[in-house]
Amino acid sequence: MKLYETATAPNPRRVRMFMAEKGLLEQVECIEIDLAKGENLTPEFVARNPMKKVPVLELDDGTCLAETMAICRYVEEAHPETLPLLGTSPKQKALIEQWLRWIDFYFMMPVGMCFQHTSGYFKDRMTCFPEYGQDCYGKAQEFMAFLDQYLATHDYLVGDEFSAADINAFATLAFARVVKLRADSSLPNLSAWYERIAARPSAQV
Amino acid sequence: MKLYETATAPNPRRVRMFMAEKGLLEQVECIEIDLAKGENLTPEFVARNPMKKVPVLELDDGTCLAETMAICRYVEEAHPETLPLLGTSPKQKALIEQWLRWIDFYFMMPVGMCFQHTSGYFKDRMTCFPEYGQDCYGKAQEFMAFLDQYLATHDYLVGDEFSAADINAFATLAFARVVKLRADSSLPNLSAWYERIAARPSAQV
Repeated sequence: MKLYETATAPNPRRVRMFMAEKGLLEQVECIEIDLAKGENLTPEFVARNPMKKVPVLELDDGTCLAETMAICRYVEEAHPETLPLLGTSPKQKALIEQWLRWIDFYFMMPVGMCFQHTSGYFKDRMTCFPEYGQDCYGKAQEFMAFLDQYLATHDYLVGDEFSAADINAFATLAFARVVKLRADSSLPNLSAWYERIAARPSAQV
Repeated sequence: MKLYETATAPNPRRVRMFMAEKGLLEQVECIEIDLAKGENLTPEFVARNPMKKVPVLELDDGTCLAETMAICRYVEEAHPETLPLLGTSPKQKALIEQWLRWIDFYFMMPVGMCFQHTSGYFKDRMTCFPEYGQDCYGKAQEFMAFLDQYLATHDYLVGDEFSAADINAFATLAFARVVKLRADSSLPNLSAWYERIAARPSAQV
């Protein structure tokens, strides 16, 4: 399998952590795509993912899977012998999916939009609305406060077991530093949870 | 089970169609939440979903599941005897998830943001950036052109079988009329696919 990714981007990091937790990362050939240089806009890349985003997992039969969670779903389903990270019972699977979507829509999305619209990093290929980006900053802050409150009584995000939800929230929080958002001492529970996840070997990949 | 929903909103419609396709809709008590009146902002509702969004499925044990796809995941996993809509093989599950996310991020999100930021429908509870909303309109148009091209050689979105991806794209396209986006004669393949899905009994619920 080949993973087309960008080492510093948050979504590829989610996939690497997910595969490392499952002990499968060595089975994947990682191919770096330079987003700043537009290597994701070439005809070859667009043929793999018409949405022009990393990561993309290319299976040995040539099938290309785009979207972080679609890749994680494939790995989870194709390797039932490994640590389950997307739940086992119907209720647990649904609660993990609920959290994954909360993290996407109320944390990763506002952090990403804040970054894109205020930094101008991709201004060669998008219209930036800095005031909208600033509004997104406030939304990400709100979600971090929600997480901090929730983590006052929970060790992990779902059912007090480590799951893909923790991976995604961790990768998002790590990335949020680019817009100067951090779990500082005003968010002690979020900060303690962050350190707990950061201590896992998978956080180093 | 109780489904807290809003009849005219696109996400609850996805859940109703999903459950109707599985023959399970009659097992659910639907409870209407009036978003314009802010019935989703009450302490009772926020206790069910801290993100203040419909739909929410309340299970008989009192567990509340928020997020459309988390609800669909629960229904799919808890009722394996019904028509599978999220795939059966690892690859098919992953491809459906890829499409579900493409529809969310590149179609439902821009349509919803265009609606919210240009109509001012929720201006009592959010800051509107009309120019950003207009930019989103263009992004939704781009995705509709991509869908039209794709559907020139496919009857359904994934593997030429009806799936949750068709439900979500259909509900999004139906909702897109609020921002004056339609599959007209300039998008013949998308238009034909839309009519094909609209003819299913589940499209009437």
